[in-house]
Amino acid sequence: MTQQLSLTDWMPAHQQRISLALQQRLPSTSDVTAAKLNEAMHYATLNGGKRLRAMLVYATGEAFNADADALDSAASAVEMIHAYSLVHDDMPMMDDDDLRRGKPTCHKAYDEATALLVGDALQSLAFECLCDNQLSPAQQIAMVKCLAHASGAAGMAGGQAIDLASVGKQLNQFELEAMHQLKTGALIKASVALGAHCSSTCTAADFQHLDNYAAAIGLAFQVQDDVLDVIADTETLGKQQGADIARNKPTYPALMGLEAAQKKAQSLVAEALAALDNIEKNCLALRALATFVVQRTF
Amino acid sequence: MTQQLSLTDWMPAHQQRISLALQQRLPSTSDVTAAKLNEAMHYATLNGGKRLRAMLVYATGEAFNADADALDSAASAVEMIHAYSLVHDDMPMMDDDDLRRGKPTCHKAYDEATALLVGDALQSLAFECLCDNQLSPAQQIAMVKCLAHASGAAGMAGGQAIDLASVGKQLNQFELEAMHQLKTGALIKASVALGAHCSSTCTAADFQHLDNYAAAIGLAFQVQDDVLDVIADTETLGKQQGADIARNKPTYPALMGLEAAQKKAQSLVAEALAALDNIEKNCLALRALATFVVQRTF
Repeated sequence: MTQQLSLTDWMPAHQQRISLALQQRLPSTSDVTAAKLNEAMHYATLNGGKRLRAMLVYATGEAFNADADALDSAASAVEMIHAYSLVHDDMPMMDDDDLRRGKPTCHKAYDEATALLVGDALQSLAFECLCDNQLSPAQQIAMVKCLAHASGAAGMAGGQAIDLASVGKQLNQFELEAMHQLKTGALIKASVALGAHCSSTCTAADFQHLDNYAAAIGLAFQVQDDVLDVIADTETLGKQQGADIARNKPTYPALMGLEAAQKKAQSLVAEALAALDNIEKNCLALRALATFVVQRTF
Repeated sequence: MTQQLSLTDWMPAHQQRISLALQQRLPSTSDVTAAKLNEAMHYATLNGGKRLRAMLVYATGEAFNADADALDSAASAVEMIHAYSLVHDDMPMMDDDDLRRGKPTCHKAYDEATALLVGDALQSLAFECLCDNQLSPAQQIAMVKCLAHASGAAGMAGGQAIDLASVGKQLNQFELEAMHQLKTGALIKASVALGAHCSSTCTAADFQHLDNYAAAIGLAFQVQDDVLDVIADTETLGKQQGADIARNKPTYPALMGLEAAQKKAQSLVAEALAALDNIEKNCLALRALATFVVQRTF
C-alpha cells in the first residue's frame, strides 16, 4: 500500500519557509534611496497566497534529497516571477483588477509606475537568486535557462499575449489548452524542474516523468481555477467571483460544462500520479500536492 | 604616440553585427501563436539607435580577445535589457512619450498591454541569451549575476524609481549622480563587464580598471544627454527637444550651467581614458567610444 502524506502540517511549514526565504532575498526596506520601490516589492511578494510553485520546488527537491539552501533560492526565484506576473497582470491595461488575495492590488496600493517597476525588478531579482547558492555553475545555469525560457515569449509572457488576443473569441479546447500551457503551465513545469536541478541524483528519465507530472497538474490547476470562478464566492476567492465570465474570457466550464470540467481536473490528477509511479523515489509531497490542486476551494 | 582608431568604419560594422545578432535571437515572427508579441519585440529592439551598450561589449571583448559568438550573445542580452527599459519608460504612467528615435513608441505602434509584455519578455530573453553560447557555466553565471544585479532594484529599476520620486524636486549634484549611477550607469558598467567576462584573460585588476572606465563614461553619457536636451533640435534627437526641462526633471545644465556641464563631460572622458592606461591591452575601440560619448550630437 502506498504511503500518504497529509499537507496539514507540511504545507504551512513550507509556506512559512518560503516567506522567510523571500524576506531574506528582497531588497531592504530600510534602504532610503529606493525605499518606495523596495517596500512595494515586499508588498507584492509577501501577501500570502498558496505558494503552489514554491511548494512544488520543495516537494520535488525533497524527493531527490536536494540541497536545502538551493531549494530556498529556487523557490524564491519562481515565486518572484509569479508575483511579478500578477502585479503586471492586475494593471489597468491588462486585467484591471483592484483586489488580489483580498487586498488592494499593487498599483492600487502604490501607483502604476511603481507597480511597473516592481514587476521589472522582481524579474531581475529572480535570476539573481538562482546564482546565489552553493550549487555548481552548471546546475545554476540549467536553472537560469529553465526559468528564463518558462517566463518569456515561449512561456508565460507568450501565454498572456495569447490570452489578451483571445478575449471575446470562441476558442476550441485545443486552443484553450495551448494558451494555458504557456500562461500558467510553463512556470509550474519550471517549478518542478528547478527543484530537480537542485539535486544531482535526478536522472534524465526522472526529469521526463516529473515533466509529465507537472504538465498534468498545471492543466488541472487551471481547470480548477475556472471551476472555482463559477462555484466559489468572492470572499473565499479573495478576488471577484465570476470575473473571467464577466470579461468574456474562454473557460473550461463555458466550453464543456461544469461537471465535465470537474471530471477533467480529476483525470488530470490521476495522470499526474501515474507519472510519479515511474520514479523510484519517495514522492509523497508531490502526490499530496497533485490532490490538493483539485480539492482546493480558493 | 598612442595609436588611434576611427569609429567611422568600426561603429557601423558593429551596429550591423548587433542587429544581426538580435534578429537571430528574437522569437520568430512567423510563429502564429504569439505573432503580435513577437513582432512587437522586433519593433522595439530593431529600431536602430547608437547601440552604445553593445559597442562597449564588443570593444571590451576585442581588447581581451574574447570569443566572438559569446560577445554576440552578451551584446544582445544587454541591448534587450536596454530596449525593454525604453519600452516601459515610454509608457503613459512613466514618461508618456509618443516618439522614440523618430518613430512611434511601442505602446503607440501597438497597445499598452502589448508594450508591457514586450518589456517583460525581452527581459527574460536577455537572460536566456547569456546561457546560449560556448562559454563555461562559471563564465555564464558570472554574466547572469552581473546583468541581473545591474537591471534590478539595486541598478536600473532602482534608478528609475528614484528618478520618478525626484520629478519637481531640487536635487543636489550628489543626489543627481547617485540617481544616474543606477538609472543608466549600472547597465553601462555591466556592458563593459560582460565583454570582459567573455574572455578568460581578464585579470581582477583589469576588471577594476574597466569598471572605473565604465563609471566615468556612464556619467559622461548622462551629462551629455542633458546637454543635448538643451542644445539639439527635435529632428536630430529623434525625440522632443527640451523634454526633460519641460517635465521639470533635474539636469546637469540646470544645476551647474551649460558650460560647466560641457566641461564636466570632457573631464569625465579624460578620467575614463586614464583608467585604460592601466590596462596592458590594446583598448583602441574603448578609447574611441569614450570620446564619441561627448562628441555625439544625437
